[in-house]
Amino acid sequence: MHIAGIRVSSLTADLHYQGRPDLALIEIAEGASLSVLTTRNQAAAPPVLLTRECLKKLGGKPTSEKSYWLVNSGNANAATGADGMKDARDTCEALGRLAGVSAPMVMPFSTGIIGVRLNAERLINTLPGLYERLDEHGWEGAALAIMTTDCKEKQAFRSAQIGGREIHLAGIAKGAAMLKPDMATMLSFAATDATCAPELLAQIHRRAVNRTFNRICVEGDTSTNDCATLAATAQDGSSKPLNAAEAAGLEEMLCDLCGELAEGMVRDAEGASHLIRIEVNGGRDGKECRQVADAIARCVLLKTCLATADPNWGRVLMALGYSGIQDLDLNTVSLYLGDVIAFERGSIAPSYSEKAGYEALNQYEQRIVLDLGRGEAKDYALTCDITQEYVSKNSDFRT
Amino acid sequence: MHIAGIRVSSLTADLHYQGRPDLALIEIAEGASLSVLTTRNQAAAPPVLLTRECLKKLGGKPTSEKSYWLVNSGNANAATGADGMKDARDTCEALGRLAGVSAPMVMPFSTGIIGVRLNAERLINTLPGLYERLDEHGWEGAALAIMTTDCKEKQAFRSAQIGGREIHLAGIAKGAAMLKPDMATMLSFAATDATCAPELLAQIHRRAVNRTFNRICVEGDTSTNDCATLAATAQDGSSKPLNAAEAAGLEEMLCDLCGELAEGMVRDAEGASHLIRIEVNGGRDGKECRQVADAIARCVLLKTCLATADPNWGRVLMALGYSGIQDLDLNTVSLYLGDVIAFERGSIAPSYSEKAGYEALNQYEQRIVLDLGRGEAKDYALTCDITQEYVSKNSDFRT
Repeated sequence: MHIAGIRVSSLTADLHYQGRPDLALIEIAEGASLSVLTTRNQAAAPPVLLTRECLKKLGGKPTSEKSYWLVNSGNANAATGADGMKDARDTCEALGRLAGVSAPMVMPFSTGIIGVRLNAERLINTLPGLYERLDEHGWEGAALAIMTTDCKEKQAFRSAQIGGREIHLAGIAKGAAMLKPDMATMLSFAATDATCAPELLAQIHRRAVNRTFNRICVEGDTSTNDCATLAATAQDGSSKPLNAAEAAGLEEMLCDLCGELAEGMVRDAEGASHLIRIEVNGGRDGKECRQVADAIARCVLLKTCLATADPNWGRVLMALGYSGIQDLDLNTVSLYLGDVIAFERGSIAPSYSEKAGYEALNQYEQRIVLDLGRGEAKDYALTCDITQEYVSKNSDFRT
Repeated sequence: MHIAGIRVSSLTADLHYQGRPDLALIEIAEGASLSVLTTRNQAAAPPVLLTRECLKKLGGKPTSEKSYWLVNSGNANAATGADGMKDARDTCEALGRLAGVSAPMVMPFSTGIIGVRLNAERLINTLPGLYERLDEHGWEGAALAIMTTDCKEKQAFRSAQIGGREIHLAGIAKGAAMLKPDMATMLSFAATDATCAPELLAQIHRRAVNRTFNRICVEGDTSTNDCATLAATAQDGSSKPLNAAEAAGLEEMLCDLCGELAEGMVRDAEGASHLIRIEVNGGRDGKECRQVADAIARCVLLKTCLATADPNWGRVLMALGYSGIQDLDLNTVSLYLGDVIAFERGSIAPSYSEKAGYEALNQYEQRIVLDLGRGEAKDYALTCDITQEYVSKNSDFRT
C-alpha cells in the first residue's frame, strides 16, 4: 500500500528490544492537512506534550515544509519529567536538522515501558539511516517497528470514488494491552491523498476515532502515550477540497479502516482467546448505551468466565447494575447470548438452558446482546476474555 | 464470642454446595436498634429489595418483636425477577411463622451464583432445624456457613469500656471476589450489646463502612447482593443510651472491627498472593485522594505485575493520570515503593534502582505511597494482586 505524498521507513535502534526494528518515520509532503488526537490521561508522557506543542504552533494547517511523525517502540518516555522532555526535543531537533525543516514539523510518538529514561543518543545516531530509507512503500515495515507486545502487525488500506476522484486511505496501528474505550496504549497513523480542509479533517477524524478505537477495551487502563493521527496530502489530482458530502464519504472510509485496525488490536490482545462483542440496544440515548457497554466490557469477572464459554450471564446484569445507568428497571431488560435468550424482561427466560447458553458462547467470536427495552438508541463495545496467559504476560512484562 | 441478646445458628440445606453448611440465622432480641446498608448496584437482587422493604416498615427502631437475619450461601437469588422475589418472601414468611413474628421482622440475605432460581422448598424444609439450633455461641458456625469461594471464615470481636460500661462488639463477614470499594460481594453481620438510638447507630455504621469495607477492591466489580448490618441490643446493663461522645467510642471500635473483617477479605481474595496497601497523601481534599487510590487499586496491569514484585511503578502514574483528578501536575508528585522513593516531584528519583524497588515489593504486604504534593488530605485503598490462579478460579466458577 502507498499514499501519494507519504514516505515511510523503519530501522533498528535497540532502544529496549534487541535486534528488531523499533523506530519508524513517516514523512508528509508539503501542503497536507493534519489531525492528531492524543490521550486523555493527565499523566501524558513528554512526547505527547511535545506533539501537542507542535500542533498548537501549526494548527494542522497546510504548510510550506514537510512534516514528520517519529515513532519509537520499547520505551514510552513516560514519567520521565524534564529529562524525558529534553530527550524528546533533542531527537526531534536532530531529525529537523537532517530533513532541513523547523522544529515544530517533527512530532514524536513513543510506546513501551513507562518510567525508564529513553536512550536519546542511540536514537539520534540511528536517525540518518532512518531518514535515508524513506520510501513510498515503507508502511508494512513501520507497522512492524511500532509493535510492543503485539503478536501481529496491524495495517489496513481502502480506496473509493469520492466526488469523481479516486481517494486512497492507509493506516497502521499498534496495541495489545492497556486498552480501554477512551484511547488506549495504542498508536495509529493514517494518511489519505484526499484534499481536505484541516477543520473538516479534524471533525471526521474525531468522529471516526470515537466510533472505533474508543469502543475497544482490553483491561480498562488508559495509557499515557496514546495518539491517533491522520494526514490528508491533497495529492488526489484535484485542486478542489472535498465538500461536506464528499467528506462524509471519506469519514465512512475512515471508520471502516479504523474499525479494522481497532478490531485487530482486540484480536491480538495479550493472551486473549475470544473476541467479545457487547451490543446494547433499546436505550434512552446513545450515552447510556455506551456507558453500559463499557461497564460490561470492563467487567473482569465476566471476561474470565467467557474464557471457558461459561454462560455465567448474571455477571452481565451485575455490570449493568453498577454501570451508573439511571432508574434501572430489570423488568424491561432482556439478555441474549448470541441468539439464545437467557433473561427476558425481568426473569430467567423459560426456554433458556445452560447447554444452549454454553453452545452460543463456545466459539471464537462471542456476542452478548442486552436490550434495555426503554428506547431506540444503541451502541457497542469490543473486548476480549481475560486468560491465565494475560496474567502471565503482564506479570513477566520485563523479565 | 457472644453478644447478649443475639442467638446464631447454621445448618446444611444443600442449596448449591453439597454437604457443607450454607444457611445461617441471626436472632436479635426485642428492643434492639438496627442499621442495614445495601448495595448501590441498580440490579439489586430480590432478597436485597425485600430487606429494604422490611427496613422501610421498621425504620431500624426498637420493636416489641424479635428480628431475624436469614442468610444463605451458594445462590444469590439475583436476576431471578418476580419468581426470585416470591422465593425470598416465602422463605421469610415461613421463618416468621416458626418464630411467631410478623413478616417484616425477617430480612433475607443471599450470596452465590447469579441467574439461577433458589430452591426455596429445600430452604424452607431446613428452617425448623435451623431455628431450633439458635444459640448464643453460634457465631463461628455462621461465619463458615455464609462463605462462598472464601477459603477462611472471617470473624472478629472487640470489647471496651465506654461511659463506664463494658461494651462488646462481634462481627462476621464473607467475601473473596467481586469486590470493589463501594460495597462488594460481601455480607457482613455485626452486633453490639450497647444501647444506641437508631439514628446515631445508622450514622456510625455508615461512616465505619465507608472507612473500611468501601476501601477494599479485588477486581472492581460491585455485586448485586452486598449488605452490611449492625444491631445494638441494648443489653449492656444500662438503661441510658450512648451519648454522642460515647457513640464516638463505639464508632472507633466498629471501624477497628470492620477494618479487620475487610482486610480479612482482601487477604482471602481469590488467588491473591500479596496484600497491597495504596496510600495517597498530599491531596487537596479527601475526595481526590480516594478517587486516585481507587483508580490505582483497580488497575489490572499494576496488579498483575505486583504478583511477581515487578517494580513497574510507571503503571501507578498511568492510573493516577486516568483517575479523573483535576489539574494534575506531575512536578508536585512523588511515589514510593515501601520506603523506597522511585519518582520525585516529576522525575525518576536519582537514588532509585530497580533492585531496590524489587526488594521493597518482594514481601507479602506491599505498600505503594503516592504523594500528590498539593495539600494535606489523605486516603487509602486495600487491594491484592491478580494471579493466574484468580483467572483459573473465576473461569471455573461453576465447573
